[in-house]
Amino acid sequence: MDTTEAKVTLAVDVMGSDHGPKEVLAGISQSLETSPRGTRFLLFGREDEIHKHSSSFGNFDSGQVEIRHAPEVVEMDEKPIAGIKGKKKSSMALALQCVKDQEAQALLSCGNTGCLMAGSTIRLRTLEGVERPALCTIWPGRERYFTLLDAGANPHAKPFHIAQNAILGSNYARVALGLVRPKVGLLTIGTEEGKGNEVINETHDMLKDIDGSIINYSGLIEGFQIFENAVDVVVCDGFVGNIVLKACESLSKLISSFLDEELRRNALRKTGALLSKGAFKSLKQRINPEQFGGAPLLGLTQNVIKAHGSSNRNHISGAVKIALDLVQHDMLAQMALDVKEANEIFRPEPLVSSKGQ
Amino acid sequence: MDTTEAKVTLAVDVMGSDHGPKEVLAGISQSLETSPRGTRFLLFGREDEIHKHSSSFGNFDSGQVEIRHAPEVVEMDEKPIAGIKGKKKSSMALALQCVKDQEAQALLSCGNTGCLMAGSTIRLRTLEGVERPALCTIWPGRERYFTLLDAGANPHAKPFHIAQNAILGSNYARVALGLVRPKVGLLTIGTEEGKGNEVINETHDMLKDIDGSIINYSGLIEGFQIFENAVDVVVCDGFVGNIVLKACESLSKLISSFLDEELRRNALRKTGALLSKGAFKSLKQRINPEQFGGAPLLGLTQNVIKAHGSSNRNHISGAVKIALDLVQHDMLAQMALDVKEANEIFRPEPLVSSKGQ
Repeated sequence: MDTTEAKVTLAVDVMGSDHGPKEVLAGISQSLETSPRGTRFLLFGREDEIHKHSSSFGNFDSGQVEIRHAPEVVEMDEKPIAGIKGKKKSSMALALQCVKDQEAQALLSCGNTGCLMAGSTIRLRTLEGVERPALCTIWPGRERYFTLLDAGANPHAKPFHIAQNAILGSNYARVALGLVRPKVGLLTIGTEEGKGNEVINETHDMLKDIDGSIINYSGLIEGFQIFENAVDVVVCDGFVGNIVLKACESLSKLISSFLDEELRRNALRKTGALLSKGAFKSLKQRINPEQFGGAPLLGLTQNVIKAHGSSNRNHISGAVKIALDLVQHDMLAQMALDVKEANEIFRPEPLVSSKGQ
Repeated sequence: MDTTEAKVTLAVDVMGSDHGPKEVLAGISQSLETSPRGTRFLLFGREDEIHKHSSSFGNFDSGQVEIRHAPEVVEMDEKPIAGIKGKKKSSMALALQCVKDQEAQALLSCGNTGCLMAGSTIRLRTLEGVERPALCTIWPGRERYFTLLDAGANPHAKPFHIAQNAILGSNYARVALGLVRPKVGLLTIGTEEGKGNEVINETHDMLKDIDGSIINYSGLIEGFQIFENAVDVVVCDGFVGNIVLKACESLSKLISSFLDEELRRNALRKTGALLSKGAFKSLKQRINPEQFGGAPLLGLTQNVIKAHGSSNRNHISGAVKIALDLVQHDMLAQMALDVKEANEIFRPEPLVSSKGQ
């Protein structure tokens, strides 16, 4: 094996987590144990805070970790553009700059999603031929995991954007889920053609045009098919995707808390629950969408992974693994090829994109 | 109490259920025991099949039940317009005609949703000033039930339609949930103004215009607030509503079956599950969206209730109760007033609606 392959540098914005930098640093510490030796971590954040916590991890002085002081922090309530443009010395902005300068091949952040999306789009720009990036999530289904995108990056999506999501998501599913030909479905309200709305009908036609060569398109799917693993890549616009994911995440938490309440209602149930506690622990693991730890913002010139603000060290470590996999499989190169090929089908006459041509 | 109030006639299409007519008839039999004496049930379906089952219910000969033979049945896979126009002697078509002729004040059917929506809209027409009907569902939230509409009647909704859904849903929530001033929320991807898409922004402005006088508008809500009872009436277009509801229904079933699987995994867990079985039964009841048994198609000149195809007798009986409540509270009259008042605000210059004016 060529060990040069493993020399990936990851930029980490350690400041955005709900738990403060400690869990992020603990996750990095775990990753140091499991990642290839050549992997480097550039940690952006308040130096004093990082040092305070990192001293308790024995492996931060291995030469793989470099701390880069960032005096500012993008807070959770900041508006996208203001947060990123107003705080040029924030851990997020500096980490983005480092990826832009190609000093690192991927960026990981638990920070403000809106600011990260805006900042990534402004600083890193989209892949050639991609108009809008998409946030891609991984969810547990009945038999296996599936991806869904866009989870909210582009709530004003046109058919062209949604069709591109199919290409972005397929490339991600190949690496993150290890699938050779991930099945793609377009989320709508009925599997008969023409039953959705105009945007869906147009997108469906575009997806049929690139089926076989660029994606493996299974056609239209309904809401109840998502969790039944009808497909591996569920494609929708950012408005629908965001609402569905938030509603499902909240329903899942509600059911868990109803179950807890019911099990505590009397002594008999409490005793039973104690005996079956392994079942409840397994259930929680099986339905936890956070275990993959990160949602990539796809369609950019660089790899950007958004980790949940409430990520624990295991989630962070999971997100690091995904980031490294994306780099090592060179997902971006294949994605760029697929986008180019698809755009020749979508737009046979190229748009005039620069002056004088 | 004025007993004339109670003289409601309900038309029931008994043929559309997944379980055949038996469960529907059993539900009607239950309702006969609990409804006001003057309530009448006109049952539409194949006479021989109805007689076969109804003979086992002792209360069908009370004079409150009348069987009306319908030789045809609208099947589950029929297309909306074809199903309703092609089968004029179906139980659904004849029941609709009976409501149109004002022989009955409400219609209940478990049949093909698309055909029922198309048939109701064509035969009964929308309330004056309403452009599109909306399917309204009731769901369990953390503390109490909430309504969500549109669940799929109108997937091409304009802001005017979505704003009208708020009025339709508020009127329904007053009767079905017994609320005086149900709180209305517009479902989107962030609670900041302008964060959704253009349709949401326009709808939000319209809802603010009728807040206070016609509805009790709480503003924008996100997906994770639905089940947390942020509002009583969740308003969205039929595309989003249908996908969210189907995804959530399917997730809820998935979690239940994961729980079952985990509890059967070994002898210890099985023993525990036996002791706590009351908890699982209660949980299933608490998260079952079918217990209200019916989803009304709102915005029509008459009351139409769609019951789930898999409804059991309790669900049917629940749907009957809702249908009777809607009639007795004269929901349609108040809805018509609210629509008129709102339209004067939405459209200060009335559209020319008839010739020569």
